[in-house]
Amino acid sequence: MKTSAHATSRTLVKDAHRATAPREHIHLQGWVRTRRDSRMLSFVELNDGSCLRGMQIIVNATLPDYASLMQRSATGASISVHGQLVPSQGSGQRWEVVARDYTVIGEVDAAYPLQKKGHTLEFLRAHAHLRARTNLFGAVFRMRSRLAFAVHEFFQQRGFYYVHTPIITASDCEGAGEMFNVTTLDLATPPRTPAGEVDYSRDFFGQRTSLTVSGQLEGETYACALSNIYTFGPTFRAENSNTSRHAAEFWMIEPEAAFLDLDGDMQLAEDFVTHLIRDTFEKGAEEMAFFNQYVDKGLISRLEFVLTRPFQRCSYTEAVRILDAATTHGRVWERDVKWGDNLQSEHERFLTEEHFKSPVVVHDYPRALKPFYMRANDDGRTVRAMDVLVPGVGEIIGGSQREERLDVLLSNLGAHGLDAHEYAWYADLRRYGTVPHSGFGMGFERLLMFATGMANIRDVIPYARTPGNAGF
Amino acid sequence: MKTSAHATSRTLVKDAHRATAPREHIHLQGWVRTRRDSRMLSFVELNDGSCLRGMQIIVNATLPDYASLMQRSATGASISVHGQLVPSQGSGQRWEVVARDYTVIGEVDAAYPLQKKGHTLEFLRAHAHLRARTNLFGAVFRMRSRLAFAVHEFFQQRGFYYVHTPIITASDCEGAGEMFNVTTLDLATPPRTPAGEVDYSRDFFGQRTSLTVSGQLEGETYACALSNIYTFGPTFRAENSNTSRHAAEFWMIEPEAAFLDLDGDMQLAEDFVTHLIRDTFEKGAEEMAFFNQYVDKGLISRLEFVLTRPFQRCSYTEAVRILDAATTHGRVWERDVKWGDNLQSEHERFLTEEHFKSPVVVHDYPRALKPFYMRANDDGRTVRAMDVLVPGVGEIIGGSQREERLDVLLSNLGAHGLDAHEYAWYADLRRYGTVPHSGFGMGFERLLMFATGMANIRDVIPYARTPGNAGF
Repeated sequence: MKTSAHATSRTLVKDAHRATAPREHIHLQGWVRTRRDSRMLSFVELNDGSCLRGMQIIVNATLPDYASLMQRSATGASISVHGQLVPSQGSGQRWEVVARDYTVIGEVDAAYPLQKKGHTLEFLRAHAHLRARTNLFGAVFRMRSRLAFAVHEFFQQRGFYYVHTPIITASDCEGAGEMFNVTTLDLATPPRTPAGEVDYSRDFFGQRTSLTVSGQLEGETYACALSNIYTFGPTFRAENSNTSRHAAEFWMIEPEAAFLDLDGDMQLAEDFVTHLIRDTFEKGAEEMAFFNQYVDKGLISRLEFVLTRPFQRCSYTEAVRILDAATTHGRVWERDVKWGDNLQSEHERFLTEEHFKSPVVVHDYPRALKPFYMRANDDGRTVRAMDVLVPGVGEIIGGSQREERLDVLLSNLGAHGLDAHEYAWYADLRRYGTVPHSGFGMGFERLLMFATGMANIRDVIPYARTPGNAGF
Repeated sequence: MKTSAHATSRTLVKDAHRATAPREHIHLQGWVRTRRDSRMLSFVELNDGSCLRGMQIIVNATLPDYASLMQRSATGASISVHGQLVPSQGSGQRWEVVARDYTVIGEVDAAYPLQKKGHTLEFLRAHAHLRARTNLFGAVFRMRSRLAFAVHEFFQQRGFYYVHTPIITASDCEGAGEMFNVTTLDLATPPRTPAGEVDYSRDFFGQRTSLTVSGQLEGETYACALSNIYTFGPTFRAENSNTSRHAAEFWMIEPEAAFLDLDGDMQLAEDFVTHLIRDTFEKGAEEMAFFNQYVDKGLISRLEFVLTRPFQRCSYTEAVRILDAATTHGRVWERDVKWGDNLQSEHERFLTEEHFKSPVVVHDYPRALKPFYMRANDDGRTVRAMDVLVPGVGEIIGGSQREERLDVLLSNLGAHGLDAHEYAWYADLRRYGTVPHSGFGMGFERLLMFATGMANIRDVIPYARTPGNAGF
């Protein structure tokens, strides 16, 4: 049981830094980040990934095997240290450890790609299995974990139930079509119908299936039973676009609430965003200071902007009027916008960053721009949709009140060229005790980019999937 | 803003039941579960899915439109009630609501499938979009949400970081092969190489890809950077087996810890299981009482068994000896077991339920039964694997210490017929500061079946995917 005792005796570096008094004995395990040798001793920075900072280890030359131990303690080597936690003599940190017993567990091959600092993000993407060992990516992925938990906390505290909507699906939420096929058929020789078409009735599920693009429709069925639910799971788009903002696989959060109208939905979205940012300030202060210094000097002020300025609400029609007025006053756009057009990122950022100088919720978009399930307004040309815009990023949330009237829903399905039979279960919600209900979607990676300042979605996903890339 | 004010004024039934004093005004919204009319008033049970119990609404015949309102308040109709929260006159509940203002929001079509009670589980599976409106499935899916959150709480409190490992993958963790293909190629006319084979270089990712069967290998890369991590995401098996315990899509939890040996891993698994069961007793008492009464009379005593009896540890070799001894004493097995065989469910249940009368962790399994990544023992014939067995279910967790020695790992890859080149990134962890590390996997649905007593995996997944079935 010796090793087990060792395992439980271990202190994480983040806990060691929180010590309130010196400790006669402490046991740290981690990887050598840097080493500096002087005549009588060596300074080894041990990092275990539990927090941004490492712990400085003082290794006296009097330790048995000192020379050999240090020679094997190159950057990346794994070590185990028993010693004394003492106030640090140097500046910049409160505690350091004087080693009493120092072991090299695993040496590091000379080919170690992370030996030197200052690698490009592209280089680190190619070494995605190692990059979480750097300060930057360690910070990004601790932040990812913390924010994911903050998402759960927010909804659980408010009585929302977590629902795992299916990943493999035979339906297409957006009616959009850019989906991945899921199959066990042999692509070389798929079974054929007498007419020569691929016979999906002989596929695993007896029909053609894809990876989900959204759990919303299934989420609605649960909201119409449990009142308040949310999903948080992977979603997929087979879009062949190589941009810094798109990935083929990403995680999405989709709350859905029964008896909630669009006003309540906008309030929920505002509360959600501010909760997440506040949580980040409270629990990720060290990482945020790091991002602000090394990634994006405007990060903290941008996030404070969201926390301190009340969210403004503005109809799409009003937004177009504001953009028109700006044009009249000489503002030049890459792409002009008139009523009925999608707002481009430049327009969204103008609204939030320059005009309102606050986060903005734009609502009641043209019906023709939006999917079949959004609730139609009485004006006949807009629907109860909303987008939350924040500085730097633009749209961070998109949502709507759902069409709860059976006749309108069925007519929308037809107008969108969708088969009402396939959506019979969805329409059932409007047949059996229909209720006004609303929800929204937030791309988790979009949130992370906003919260860390990282500019490329590939750098906030552990192993990003993009066209031509499914490595690791 | 009237509707918004309404939205925020709503009280959930679960909160109403927790009231400590009567309330002059309360606003409930939900669905009619039952209605009973007498001469001067009606009793309407309003359920909003926030908890198992509904709230009894007293509707006096003096209310305007009383007759019409009650006629439209059939089972399944959605209603909104403003009224007074008063101590209940009847037995069985503390509070009831006397309606002051009663609105039917959505009526219910006469074809409503859930009008009567006592449907079979099969019938409800065919109406999966509605079944969460029943007492049973409402309870199951609230439990699912609560346990998912308890999983996150357990790991976050212990300094484990949540990692989203990829869903679409080009590697095969188990070397097993029963995987779903993910493709954007047109199955009818896939591109071909000159040799006539399907040309996957023209697929979306430029290579053949599948749905993940485990995030373990990628999880290991993060444990070797952040020390302690866990995954919690969907995993997939294209196994064409129609049993009550297998689904093609299920959620798995996989913690991985650096500097942890198998002893520590077994301790972590024990702490995890007991945390989840304790949390269920604390926060899901109402649902558990319901399951114990209507689903499985032995449920609570079985879960208490796990909480009160210390987990026993027993080597595989010892387990086989115990089973042998039982055979000698007249025990008859459907399938005999000798050293080198997999333990069957009957053997596992004998060990936990009859022999040890406690949860059991069986460890150090024959090498030939296990995947390439498990750490070899010095005896040359066993590996540092472990399974946690609990009564009723058998195996609930499987894990191992990972092979951290580069030479042994490479030789294992060869012995399993795997291409070392494809696992180069995985082997890198052993080249650059290798550390002993361990982890385990728990199927979330297996846990749910254990915690609810539900006997079929299809009944603990919102929309189950099984051979021939990808409905909704």
